[in-house]
Amino acid sequence: MTKRIRISEIFGPTIQGEGPLIGRPTVFVRTGGCDYRCAWCDTLYAVLPEYRDDWLPMTPGEIMARVDELAGGKPVLVSLSGGNPAMQPLAPLIALGRERGHGFALETQGSISHPWFAELDWLILSPKPPSAGMATDWHAFDACLAAARGRPRCVLKVVVFDDADYSYAQAVAARYPALAVYLQVGNPAPLAGAAHPADADIDDLLRRLRWLVGKVTADRWFAATVLPQLHVLVWGNKRGV
Amino acid sequence: MTKRIRISEIFGPTIQGEGPLIGRPTVFVRTGGCDYRCAWCDTLYAVLPEYRDDWLPMTPGEIMARVDELAGGKPVLVSLSGGNPAMQPLAPLIALGRERGHGFALETQGSISHPWFAELDWLILSPKPPSAGMATDWHAFDACLAAARGRPRCVLKVVVFDDADYSYAQAVAARYPALAVYLQVGNPAPLAGAAHPADADIDDLLRRLRWLVGKVTADRWFAATVLPQLHVLVWGNKRGV
Repeated sequence: MTKRIRISEIFGPTIQGEGPLIGRPTVFVRTGGCDYRCAWCDTLYAVLPEYRDDWLPMTPGEIMARVDELAGGKPVLVSLSGGNPAMQPLAPLIALGRERGHGFALETQGSISHPWFAELDWLILSPKPPSAGMATDWHAFDACLAAARGRPRCVLKVVVFDDADYSYAQAVAARYPALAVYLQVGNPAPLAGAAHPADADIDDLLRRLRWLVGKVTADRWFAATVLPQLHVLVWGNKRGV
Repeated sequence: MTKRIRISEIFGPTIQGEGPLIGRPTVFVRTGGCDYRCAWCDTLYAVLPEYRDDWLPMTPGEIMARVDELAGGKPVLVSLSGGNPAMQPLAPLIALGRERGHGFALETQGSISHPWFAELDWLILSPKPPSAGMATDWHAFDACLAAARGRPRCVLKVVVFDDADYSYAQAVAARYPALAVYLQVGNPAPLAGAAHPADADIDDLLRRLRWLVGKVTADRWFAATVLPQLHVLVWGNKRGV
């Protein structure tokens, strides 16, 4: 029997707002459940057990039917996100999608690895900086890279709110000199309370981006790429876009 | 005797705000002079003959000394822009920069080609859509791609203001199916008059971005990448950032 996958939401096509695939049209498949509790998590509805009733256990066939419907039957980049999508049995979904010509990018904090990471096109590893309040298990993180076996493009994405996060990002980059590093400006709106998730303070986000660009250029850290969450600038902290 | 290069400005390091290198730290080398007169040109100070007195004829050694100074002696991505930088004799500059470990990206409308295009890391070809009021010479454009000889990464970047521009971008993409296409949201501020170049209407730009994402996703044009001019969102239409 095919194992079901816990799905929080499937939406798109829209553009990827973050990281190396910024601006690329994609369909998001967001799984429910996470082994982390980041202080500034912007998708708690896909993390906390009290939302579990909103998560639908779906078969790979059901998920792919929905992706195909949204994509109008055309091959598309599927962004596997969460929560932590690595908690789910995604191998059959990826195999099914590949048959139909879809590509797959998975983003995870790097706490859980699987052999099927090698079947992805992109593995975006996003270790959590001090501001998240989570400790990185580097042994588990290394296992994710090992599981990829050099097949997907592996990159690092680190959210930066402050100097401590920035130092953490530098340390991560030094640990993995072969990987491209994307620094993402922290979005404090989720910290301000989930009651008004659509309220993004654009001026504040752009100020934070200027600060981060200033840090990187002052340090001549030319290997880093600095990006905002484009979707937050465009749509605010709204779901489903 | 080494030929001098007409320089409008050299600045950075800052982040590249556009196209495939969005978010990457770079030093800009902007040349003076252009064979086009785009209606919405946002760098007329590097285009119009009346600014010619502001352009400094510099040797490759002088330019590279300034780049090295700005980059703190570290290898950096050099963005060759204009004007049309293909009007300048850039081969010795690129050779000199390569010796020092720098990388080079050149952006041009594709009206003038050179054998030294093959020495670049990135060739960003930006044919001008109907809103620019310029006609594309496809023979000259093809010559640019031929000159690159498959060595730099060649991509297309098309500015889109309206439906006619969008149709043009689709036709360009169909003509070059092997090249990645970046659609860039048009910035109408320069059209409103150069007197207040710092006035970028961020809300309007984000509205245009939402419109363009809507077009691309409705058409299931999944091979396109949709991006804003990030530097305009961050700094407005300000020079030197």
